[in-house]
Amino acid sequence: MAAAPSTTPLLKDELDIVIPTIRNLDFLEMWRPFLQPYHLIIVQDGDPKKTIRVPEGFDYELYNRDDINRILGPKASCISFKDSACRCFGYMVSKKKYIFTIDDDCFVAKDPSGKDINALEQHIKNLLSPSTPFFFNTLYDPYRDGADFVRGYPFSLREGAPTAVSHGLWLNIPDYDAPTQLVKPLERNSRYVDAVLTIPKGTLFPMCGMNLAFDRELIGPAMYFGLMGDGQPIGRYDDMWAGWCTKVITDHLGLGVKTGLPYIWHSKASNPFVNLKKEYNGIFWQEELIPFFQSAALPKEATTVQKCYLELAKQVRAKLGKVDGYFNKLADSMVTWIEAWDELNPPKGAVATTNGPAKSK
Amino acid sequence: MAAAPSTTPLLKDELDIVIPTIRNLDFLEMWRPFLQPYHLIIVQDGDPKKTIRVPEGFDYELYNRDDINRILGPKASCISFKDSACRCFGYMVSKKKYIFTIDDDCFVAKDPSGKDINALEQHIKNLLSPSTPFFFNTLYDPYRDGADFVRGYPFSLREGAPTAVSHGLWLNIPDYDAPTQLVKPLERNSRYVDAVLTIPKGTLFPMCGMNLAFDRELIGPAMYFGLMGDGQPIGRYDDMWAGWCTKVITDHLGLGVKTGLPYIWHSKASNPFVNLKKEYNGIFWQEELIPFFQSAALPKEATTVQKCYLELAKQVRAKLGKVDGYFNKLADSMVTWIEAWDELNPPKGAVATTNGPAKSK
Repeated sequence: MAAAPSTTPLLKDELDIVIPTIRNLDFLEMWRPFLQPYHLIIVQDGDPKKTIRVPEGFDYELYNRDDINRILGPKASCISFKDSACRCFGYMVSKKKYIFTIDDDCFVAKDPSGKDINALEQHIKNLLSPSTPFFFNTLYDPYRDGADFVRGYPFSLREGAPTAVSHGLWLNIPDYDAPTQLVKPLERNSRYVDAVLTIPKGTLFPMCGMNLAFDRELIGPAMYFGLMGDGQPIGRYDDMWAGWCTKVITDHLGLGVKTGLPYIWHSKASNPFVNLKKEYNGIFWQEELIPFFQSAALPKEATTVQKCYLELAKQVRAKLGKVDGYFNKLADSMVTWIEAWDELNPPKGAVATTNGPAKSK
Repeated sequence: MAAAPSTTPLLKDELDIVIPTIRNLDFLEMWRPFLQPYHLIIVQDGDPKKTIRVPEGFDYELYNRDDINRILGPKASCISFKDSACRCFGYMVSKKKYIFTIDDDCFVAKDPSGKDINALEQHIKNLLSPSTPFFFNTLYDPYRDGADFVRGYPFSLREGAPTAVSHGLWLNIPDYDAPTQLVKPLERNSRYVDAVLTIPKGTLFPMCGMNLAFDRELIGPAMYFGLMGDGQPIGRYDDMWAGWCTKVITDHLGLGVKTGLPYIWHSKASNPFVNLKKEYNGIFWQEELIPFFQSAALPKEATTVQKCYLELAKQVRAKLGKVDGYFNKLADSMVTWIEAWDELNPPKGAVATTNGPAKSK
């Protein structure tokens, strides 16, 4: 009997999918054709006694709050509770080169021809081809089939830079803040923009964690989603915080960040009143945060993501501590996060010490 | 008899269309529904004795080399000959607030629904709505219908900046340099990207003059297309040069540059062998030009486009003169251009002196 032709999905053994959740993962049914070949890391938020149902056939490990506390000990304090920021624990326990993280209210979108979009495949394409952070290409991603660098693009820059982050977008419910949600409750994003582009060096952007992929080896330790939710004066700024830190560090290290394709279908707007309560400090603070990150400079000696991140933590304490005491606590957590990361991800040759495996299928 | 309903086209009396050409303007037939209401400034390149036929019904003025020499006198030396760079003479003699410039091998493109694209209407939309140069919006132009600023976009930046430039794109023949044309003779751009975006502050881009609009009052004197073509060691870098100077100045003055929609249909690839001959110095020099423009800083006292441009001319002489003697000549011409601009466009209250009118319909 002849063997069936092998169609191993791209990066099958080099990528983990991280999903933060408080509910049964029925949304995975729709993703089955695209995501089932990959390993899932589920970070269960909220009550650890609750059982989360995962559809049959998916390969996964699941961590609840008890697991996080057991594995990280006192350092578990850096992982948020009752906020999707907890997802970054999954980045830390993964041993793979790439991460794709997706929210459990995101479904498969369709392209303009009506075909289901394999979001992960597009993220992988984005991550495996270079970025162009040093000069703007007006025909968007020059590495895409049918595209190239346009006239006037310096040849010395056409090799591009390694891509660290692929930021995907959302059809249907756009990622608006609470005030915009309140003002435009019916606005839906129905425009499919067929482009991937590099966010230029020196430019900050609002990174959304709903549909995001990154190269863990290149940028993982910068993907800390901060202290949000339970016991904290802020929520819904977890991905923003990670994005601003990440962008400053990728710029410093000569790495690229792409945004655009792939789209997912964002099914449900969260409650704007609840969101406003979580966000109001952030809306105020971001006016200080953006100038801070725009002017943040990292020293030449900061040659690794960890060194960059610890330097950034120092600057957060020095410059944002006076905005609110919360930022001193956040700076502490940034340091704890790096300590925990290094403990679970020791330099090659050393041996990782964890307190035993989590639940897994 | 009842009057027909008036549908005055947008900015009818505030916009000139500038077309550089060496041939009869039959291409305008296809543009008639969109462009006929506007005034044309035709800059005839090459032999001034040749007669250029303009389709019936268009309102235009036409300048050939003899007119340019007569109007500018010795200062005519700053206007290129036998290169589409001559178009910038049209910017100088216009008295309107806005300019749209288009090449005579560009036709009306169709959107994905098959509808003819009114390129000028989209340029006007781009110019009349603000830009967002200080922070990147992942859903592209936030001022467009159905779009907005996403979560994490600082509210203090949502007013945006005045838009100085609208850079449109091309379907069919992409704007490639000669080496890329030679390597990919059959590549066509068939991807319609339904987006307009602001090129962030601090980021340079390759500006193409094929399908370009700008606010002459905000940025006109920076739109000098350099010394190219006849008697010069370089061609096909006219729009690039203008784009790099313009971007440094818009960044300094807090103005915005948009790229993306509208598309035109670029009908014919120019000869790559001829192009290579024009471009080869530029391909070499641009490796020096980009770092030069990336690091160019303008002093606080440079508060007008003219002052910025003269300062840039000084820096061109000081820093690029050693790359090639050509740049000293170019720096001289940049100064001459500003002198000629100010002569034809005296401060309000003063009276312009020209040497009589050009030919006009």
